[in-house]
Amino acid sequence: MIGIFDSGVGGLTVVKEIKRALPNVSIIYFGDTARLPYGNKSAQTIQKYSCEITEFLAEKGCRTIVIACNSASSVAAGFLREKFPGLKIYDVVSSGAEAIVEATRSKKVGVIGTTATIASDVYRQKISQLDPKIEVFTKNCPLFVPLVEENWIGRSETKKIARVYLKELKLKKVDALLLGCTHYPLLEKVIAGVMGKRVKLVSSGCKLAEELRKKNINGSKNGDKYFVSDLTPHFMKLAGKILGKKITIEKVQLA
Amino acid sequence: MIGIFDSGVGGLTVVKEIKRALPNVSIIYFGDTARLPYGNKSAQTIQKYSCEITEFLAEKGCRTIVIACNSASSVAAGFLREKFPGLKIYDVVSSGAEAIVEATRSKKVGVIGTTATIASDVYRQKISQLDPKIEVFTKNCPLFVPLVEENWIGRSETKKIARVYLKELKLKKVDALLLGCTHYPLLEKVIAGVMGKRVKLVSSGCKLAEELRKKNINGSKNGDKYFVSDLTPHFMKLAGKILGKKITIEKVQLA
Repeated sequence: MIGIFDSGVGGLTVVKEIKRALPNVSIIYFGDTARLPYGNKSAQTIQKYSCEITEFLAEKGCRTIVIACNSASSVAAGFLREKFPGLKIYDVVSSGAEAIVEATRSKKVGVIGTTATIASDVYRQKISQLDPKIEVFTKNCPLFVPLVEENWIGRSETKKIARVYLKELKLKKVDALLLGCTHYPLLEKVIAGVMGKRVKLVSSGCKLAEELRKKNINGSKNGDKYFVSDLTPHFMKLAGKILGKKITIEKVQLA
Repeated sequence: MIGIFDSGVGGLTVVKEIKRALPNVSIIYFGDTARLPYGNKSAQTIQKYSCEITEFLAEKGCRTIVIACNSASSVAAGFLREKFPGLKIYDVVSSGAEAIVEATRSKKVGVIGTTATIASDVYRQKISQLDPKIEVFTKNCPLFVPLVEENWIGRSETKKIARVYLKELKLKKVDALLLGCTHYPLLEKVIAGVMGKRVKLVSSGCKLAEELRKKNINGSKNGDKYFVSDLTPHFMKLAGKILGKKITIEKVQLA
């Protein structure tokens, strides 16, 4: 069983990719909706929350954990690997960095994400470790998550805000752009429209799913389970939109 | 001592009004930054958080509590009054409703707030109790808080979004508009610009401060104290902007 967690509903874009690559594996999802968003919280707080969730997923029988939240991957992945040596922990940041290194030819790439993710500078560090010649340009886009949550995906205001955010990266002539937040694949069309055809958009979910597939992760088909720390109509609606089907969601209290 | 709480930094707009009305009273502020925002969380979760914070403030010696968060006022004020009969509990929703009833002449008013506040319909109920003849038109504006947090207050995109949100209320020809979220006074100029001169903007903080002044609340001038559940540079920056001075902020863990 694969345990997957995020601060909210966004991690379901990663679930979608994993289910596509490994249709026979059951997943357990945890969305920390009572304490979202993580993007503007301190590293210490995010580590504490991530630790509680990992314990919950391990108790449910997951030996493979996927951190499907960029903020948590940025500041808590190393912390969790040290604290839980018996678990195999994947994170969207490592996968995203590998994916963009493979995608670029001009060696100029862009990374967008929440304020916490970009401030942590973890993408730049990971990408530099893989290929020190790559120039990395970053930009935080804190309004993208609320715009997705508000379902303003196709609106002109969203396009206008995307133009403001992406202007500099466009001027730098990057040839690949990493969507460093699990909500951003939902804005793919808008972002692609602003960046133009020559810029390849890269999301972590696809690469991460491929890695899991290569590792031949097996698991009984017990059926997937979805947990949240707070149940809201909002989560139900957006979950259906992302996964393209209705799911049963259970509320649990962690702390 | 007056204890004041909010999910984050927004409640400091209420602190500012209270300090203006009662310069000799000490306050203790609690901003639940580790779990913000409340606006998209369930009533049950918001009640649990509000209860924890009230216990904290009471332990610090506060006998008067001000709920400076509209989402918490909407769904947790009654719950807290029942649970803590020894405390005097004020909330921004009751004060806001009184203020707008006093402000309107045409008996057509607008109320804007977060999705949770508007969905609770609590403003409409409170206003109708005070004057059943008043017609109340409401609109949730979920992007306003992130726009303030991003400091996009003066930008054209913010004005454009405000126009979208406020269009219907303008068509209804309301003569008073209640800013039903503590962040919104920071957008007062933008909102006033869209609504036009004939619409009076009303915020809860001012009315609530006046009520406290009338009650002759006294207290030793021990100095104000500010607590948060997560310390971020963001809070420091916005707190300085709202209060117009630098404050010392202490982090505490509640749950």
